[in-house]
Amino acid sequence: MSQDHPSGLSHLDSAGAARMVDVSAKDVSARTATATGKVLLSAETVAALRGEGVPKGDALAVARLAGIQGAKRTPDLVPLCHPIAIHGVDVGLEVVDEGVLISATVRTADRTGVEMEALTCVTTAALGLVDMVKAIDPEAVVTEVRVEEKTGGKTGDWRRSQ
Amino acid sequence: MSQDHPSGLSHLDSAGAARMVDVSAKDVSARTATATGKVLLSAETVAALRGEGVPKGDALAVARLAGIQGAKRTPDLVPLCHPIAIHGVDVGLEVVDEGVLISATVRTADRTGVEMEALTCVTTAALGLVDMVKAIDPEAVVTEVRVEEKTGGKTGDWRRSQ
Amino acid sequence: MSQDHPSGLSHLDSAGAARMVDVSAKDVSARTATATGKVLLSAETVAALRGEGVPKGDALAVARLAGIQGAKRTPDLVPLCHPIAIHGVDVGLEVVDEGVLISATVRTADRTGVEMEALTCVTTAALGLVDMVKAIDPEAVVTEVRVEEKTGGKTGDWRRSQ
Amino acid sequence: MSQDHPSGLSHLDSAGAARMVDVSAKDVSARTATATGKVLLSAETVAALRGEGVPKGDALAVARLAGIQGAKRTPDLVPLCHPIAIHGVDVGLEVVDEGVLISATVRTADRTGVEMEALTCVTTAALGLVDMVKAIDPEAVVTEVRVEEKTGGKTGDWRRSQ
Amino acid sequence: MSQDHPSGLSHLDSAGAARMVDVSAKDVSARTATATGKVLLSAETVAALRGEGVPKGDALAVARLAGIQGAKRTPDLVPLCHPIAIHGVDVGLEVVDEGVLISATVRTADRTGVEMEALTCVTTAALGLVDMVKAIDPEAVVTEVRVEEKTGGKTGDWRRSQ
Amino acid sequence: MSQDHPSGLSHLDSAGAARMVDVSAKDVSARTATATGKVLLSAETVAALRGEGVPKGDALAVARLAGIQGAKRTPDLVPLCHPIAIHGVDVGLEVVDEGVLISATVRTADRTGVEMEALTCVTTAALGLVDMVKAIDPEAVVTEVRVEEKTGGKTGDWRRSQ
Repeated sequence: MSQDHPSGLSHLDSAGAARMVDVSAKDVSARTATATGKVLLSAETVAALRGEGVPKGDALAVARLAGIQGAKRTPDLVPLCHPIAIHGVDVGLEVVDEGVLISATVRTADRTGVEMEALTCVTTAALGLVDMVKAIDPEAVVTEVRVEEKTGGKTGDWRRSQ
Repeated sequence: MSQDHPSGLSHLDSAGAARMVDVSAKDVSARTATATGKVLLSAETVAALRGEGVPKGDALAVARLAGIQGAKRTPDLVPLCHPIAIHGVDVGLEVVDEGVLISATVRTADRTGVEMEALTCVTTAALGLVDMVKAIDPEAVVTEVRVEEKTGGKTGDWRRSQ
Repeated sequence: MSQDHPSGLSHLDSAGAARMVDVSAKDVSARTATATGKVLLSAETVAALRGEGVPKGDALAVARLAGIQGAKRTPDLVPLCHPIAIHGVDVGLEVVDEGVLISATVRTADRTGVEMEALTCVTTAALGLVDMVKAIDPEAVVTEVRVEEKTGGKTGDWRRSQ
Repeated sequence: MSQDHPSGLSHLDSAGAARMVDVSAKDVSARTATATGKVLLSAETVAALRGEGVPKGDALAVARLAGIQGAKRTPDLVPLCHPIAIHGVDVGLEVVDEGVLISATVRTADRTGVEMEALTCVTTAALGLVDMVKAIDPEAVVTEVRVEEKTGGKTGDWRRSQ
Repeated sequence: MSQDHPSGLSHLDSAGAARMVDVSAKDVSARTATATGKVLLSAETVAALRGEGVPKGDALAVARLAGIQGAKRTPDLVPLCHPIAIHGVDVGLEVVDEGVLISATVRTADRTGVEMEALTCVTTAALGLVDMVKAIDPEAVVTEVRVEEKTGGKTGDWRRSQ
Repeated sequence: MSQDHPSGLSHLDSAGAARMVDVSAKDVSARTATATGKVLLSAETVAALRGEGVPKGDALAVARLAGIQGAKRTPDLVPLCHPIAIHGVDVGLEVVDEGVLISATVRTADRTGVEMEALTCVTTAALGLVDMVKAIDPEAVVTEVRVEEKTGGKTGDWRRSQ
C-alpha cells in the first residue's frame, strides 16, 4: 500500500488521496469501544418520555433500535471504514432533567477497533430520538458525542483523559 | 389511521405504539431545512486540516460526501422517517481554531419537512471527519448538532429562537 | 416497452425476460393496501410476550419497527418492485393464545399499488419477532401471510374473497 | 454485557431493553440451517409457472435470486441479528399443484447460527414470487415458513419435531 | 444555492466543493435514457451461455436482474445523484460471437434525467455476468459503456453523435 | 451442496439454477486483486479535471470515494457474490489526454477472491466520474474494465495474459 500522509491522517496516502487502509495483516482480537452523547430536550418532552400522566410508549425503544441498527450501517455511512463483524451492541438511555443521556458499547473480534461503530450508534440513537420528539420539541440538540474508552487491539486499552 | 398519543409525540398512536404517520394527504411543496454542528479538534488536527506544512488532502471532501450521502440514507437510519425525494444538498465545512463548523441545507419538493435529513447530513459529515482524524485525535467531540431554520410546508417558516 | 408475456405474468416480456414494468404514464393517486399474517408460538413464548410474571420488554416494539423499516426496504428485496414513496405505515400486533396476529396497512400517493409493501411489512415484522423468541421457541412458524384489501388506483378497490 | 431477561428472551436485558447479544467469545465453526415454506397459488398461476402452452420465463429465477439476496440482507432487516459472513446459499423451488414449495439452506463458518438467514431467504423468495404473479393471482398466500434443521455450533444439531 | 464552478462541472460550487445540485424547481416530466455496453468473452464462455450441449441456466437472468436492481441502487452508488423514482427498466442481453451486448432503457416521470441510472444498469448487469463466468473466463472485459440517447426534460431529446 | 453445471459455470447447479457456492470449507488467507479501466473524455473535460485556468475541485475525490464505497457494496450489487470482509482499498486515478485511467487494488484475508470487488470499485469510480462531468461531456465512455492480477488463495497468483 501507498505511504502515509505526512500529517499523520492515516486514511490519506502521501499525496493526500483517500484510501481504505490495509488491515489484512492485523490480528483478529477481541475489542470494545464505548461512546456517549446527550440529547438536550425541553421539560415538556422529558415529561412525555417519562410517561408522566400518559401511557409510556415506544419512543425510547425506537431510539435504542435506531442505535443498534446504525452501528451495523457504519461502513455504509463512514466512507473509509472497514466493513467489520459486530459481535455485540448495548445501548443505554437515561432520561434526566435536561434530556436523555446515551451510551453505547460495541464489541467485536476482528482486525480493527470499533470506536466509529460506537459513535455511529450514539448518533443514530440520538437522531431516532429527535425524530420522535420533533413535533413538540423542534429545538432539541444532539451534543457531546465522544469516545469514552476502548479495549483490545495492538495499541491496547485507552480511556478519555477529560 | 389510529389516534395520536396524548403526549403529543406524533409518531406514537394512542396506545404508545410506533407508526409511520400518514402524510399522503399533505401537499407537495418546496421545503428547506438548515442544520449546524461542530467537531471539536486538537490544535494539531486543525493544522493538518489546514494543510500547514503538508499537502492538503481529501479529508474535508470525505466529510462533505459522507454528509451528502448520509442525507440520502436518512429513511434507512431513522426508523419512522418517510422516504422522501431529496432535491438538493449543500454542506459547508469551515475550519476554525477549535475544530470544524458544519452546516447543511437540504431542499425538497415533497410532502414532509427535511429537518431530519439536514440533521443526518451534519452528523454523518461529522462522523466522516472524526474517522479521518481519529488516529491523531482520539478525543474529538461532535457537539451542538441542531436545526437552525426551516422553510415551506403547512406550518410555514421557523427559525431557532436561541 | 416490450410486449407482455402470454401467460399474463406482467413482469415478463413476450420472450419471458424479467423487466420493471413502465408505470410512468400512470396517475399519482392515493392508494392503500392491508396485509395480515400469523406467527405461531409455544404457550411459554406467548406468556413471555404477555409479560406474565416478568417485566414486559421491547419484543413487540422490535417486531413493529422491523415491519415498518421492512416496508421501506421493499424495492431492495423484491427485484422488480418500483421504488415508491411510502406515506404511512401502521403495524398491528395482537398476542393471542396461539401466537401473534400481525396486520399492516401501507399508504401512498404514487403510481403503483402498495400490496408488496404491505406483505413485506408483515413478513419482516414476523422475522423480527421470530428472532426475538427463537432461543426459547425454535419451532415458531410464520404462516398465512396474504393481502386482505387494496384501495385506490385505476383498478379500484379490491377485497379478498376468502 | 447486561444480565438476561427472566423470560428467557435472549435479546432483552434484565430490564426488557433490546440489545445485540455479545457473541465475540463464541467459536467460529461450520453451521448450516434449512428452512422451508410454501406459496399457495391458483391453478392458472401454476400452469403459467410450468410454462404450459407459453414460453417459460424468468419467474422462478427471480424468486431464487430474491431469496439469495434476501439472505444477505438479513442483518438489515432483522434488527438484532448479527452481521455474519454467509458462505453458501441453495434455494430450491418446486412447482406443485397447490403452488410452489420453497426450501433454503444457508451455510457459514462464523460465531452464530444462520436460521434467521434461512428464514429470510425463504420469505424473500416467496415475496419475489408473489410479486411476479400478483397481476393474475392477487390471492396468493405465503404460508408455513419455518426452520427444519440446524447443524453445528455449541448447541449441536437440531431437527424440527413436528 | 451556491454559484457554479467556472469549469462547467455542475456538481461543484464556485470553490470546487461537491454538492447535490438543487432540482426542486424543475418540472416533473417523462424522461427516458438508453445506455449500452459489451462484455467481451471467450468462445468457450459464449458457447456455455448459448447452452450448446448443456442445459441453459440462469446466467443471463442473473445479469438482467443485477442490472434492474443496480438501476435502483444508483443514488447509493453515485455520490451526488438525486434519489429518483424509477418507473420502468428494460434490459436487453444479446449473446454474440465476441461476448454479450447489453442495452438498458430506464424511464421516469421525475425532475432529473436518468442517464446515470441507465449507465449503472448496464455496468451492474455486466458485473453480474462477469461474476457468473469468471471461473472459466477470468479475462472477461467490460467495455464501451455509454449513453446512446435521452428523451424528455428541459434540454429535450439527445442522441449520441458517434 | 448440489452438483456443478456441466458448462463449468460455477454459480449454477447441475440443473442450471443459480446458487451461492459454498466456501465455508475454504481457508482464510490473504488475497488481493487489481483491476483497471478507462473513462474516455473530451479535451475540454480533461482540462477542467486538470484545473487549467480554474480552481481544481472535488471531482476526482468524488470518483475515488465512489470507488471505495462501491467496493464495499459488491455483495449488494452482484447477486451471487459472498459478503466478505474487505481489508484495504487503493484507488488510483490518472488524468491523461484521452480521459482518466482508473486502477483499484482490493485486499482481504477471507475465504474467496476479491476480483469482483476490484471490478466493482473501478466501475463505480467510473460512474462517479461520469456523473461529475456529464453536463459538459455527455459522450463520456467507460471502457476496458478488466482484472489485471490476483494473488493468494488456493489457485495461487494469476496475471492477465494480454
